[in-house]
Amino acid sequence: MVVTPLLFMVRDRLAASLSRGDAREFDTVHDDNSRVIVAGFGRFGQITARLLRYKKIPFTALEVNPTQVDFVRRFGNRIYYGDASRVDLLRAAGADRADLFILAIDDPEASVRTAKAVRRYFPGLKIVARARNRQHAMALLGMNIDYVIRETFLSSLDAARQALESLGLTTAEARDAIRTFRDYDENMLRDQVAFKDDEKRLIESAKQAAEELERLFEQDARERT
Amino acid sequence: MVVTPLLFMVRDRLAASLSRGDAREFDTVHDDNSRVIVAGFGRFGQITARLLRYKKIPFTALEVNPTQVDFVRRFGNRIYYGDASRVDLLRAAGADRADLFILAIDDPEASVRTAKAVRRYFPGLKIVARARNRQHAMALLGMNIDYVIRETFLSSLDAARQALESLGLTTAEARDAIRTFRDYDENMLRDQVAFKDDEKRLIESAKQAAEELERLFEQDARERT
Repeated sequence: MVVTPLLFMVRDRLAASLSRGDAREFDTVHDDNSRVIVAGFGRFGQITARLLRYKKIPFTALEVNPTQVDFVRRFGNRIYYGDASRVDLLRAAGADRADLFILAIDDPEASVRTAKAVRRYFPGLKIVARARNRQHAMALLGMNIDYVIRETFLSSLDAARQALESLGLTTAEARDAIRTFRDYDENMLRDQVAFKDDEKRLIESAKQAAEELERLFEQDARERT
Repeated sequence: MVVTPLLFMVRDRLAASLSRGDAREFDTVHDDNSRVIVAGFGRFGQITARLLRYKKIPFTALEVNPTQVDFVRRFGNRIYYGDASRVDLLRAAGADRADLFILAIDDPEASVRTAKAVRRYFPGLKIVARARNRQHAMALLGMNIDYVIRETFLSSLDAARQALESLGLTTAEARDAIRTFRDYDENMLRDQVAFKDDEKRLIESAKQAAEELERLFEQDARERT
């Protein structure tokens, strides 16, 4: 395993610059028990990481921005700062030994770049990925990522469920509508991936998104009539 | 009911500038059957609106940016362009007759401003709201909004559920962990609202967010030991 000394230097310098009065020595011993890598420590990565901690599952974090992740070190998990698509960083983080890679990077371009690096250099590593929108999800699905979830999809369905109940549907009716719609929408997304060039789709234009949405509305209506 | 002529002019001009070859006359007759207003037509508002359409429930849309919502007009729903916190716009959209206001605006400041306007001028109108993060959610909960959901919360929990299953937990164990964590986290959020000044909380600093997250990690660990 190759560990770039520069990487550790940068990391330690950042850690030092971030540490408060109670700074402790940064632990450089490798934790080979960490089965999970979480890339991206924004709102999405933080929640998944908290769940892992809650279930006492150690993880290694990768994050490009050091300002908001200082606390991870304090809780015994390892964190690396830098571009998660760099193979040396991935290797240092233990990508060759891990069971699961949680791709929680918010920026679609950085996310796809990272997914490609993981697929290429660590093909056996399972990936669970966050997607910003349909285009990003299609790019990831086109790379055969194991599990892809659009970041606002389930909360917007939950708001819709709550809305339907407020408007008089029973809990069961609202839940059923959400479930049917989710399956239908995710299947449609998968169908679209099958015959689309995912690289092109990622380059979103407002026009493209509007046309796609219009098509979705038309299909929703056809589905029910 | 006061309808500002300027509003309609702006709206029609925008509609005209957006329409393609097959433009039809914009319908200016009020649709009094619309029981729902959806404010904010980004990723979140679009999904909830598609669910409403799927269930054949008419809605009125409010959106500040006209570029991505041209298609709404084509499907018989009414749309108004402008700041959803303006009482004249809300009134024109039928806020005094509606049963439900879906607050799907992504920007926390515009969202809170709109929530305040709706609460003040249409106190009987039920609100289901999207929140960007904990701070935004707390601000909305502090205003007694009927239902608040953080926009990436459920998808990140879903990714965590999938991760736990990948790591060997049974489907039931993973689902139970997610459910417990969700309840615990939402209750904690509600507890925090009770003794916090919500206006101050909305002004996020990276430091504040990091400290809060550190506290959450500590509490997660205590919860299990």
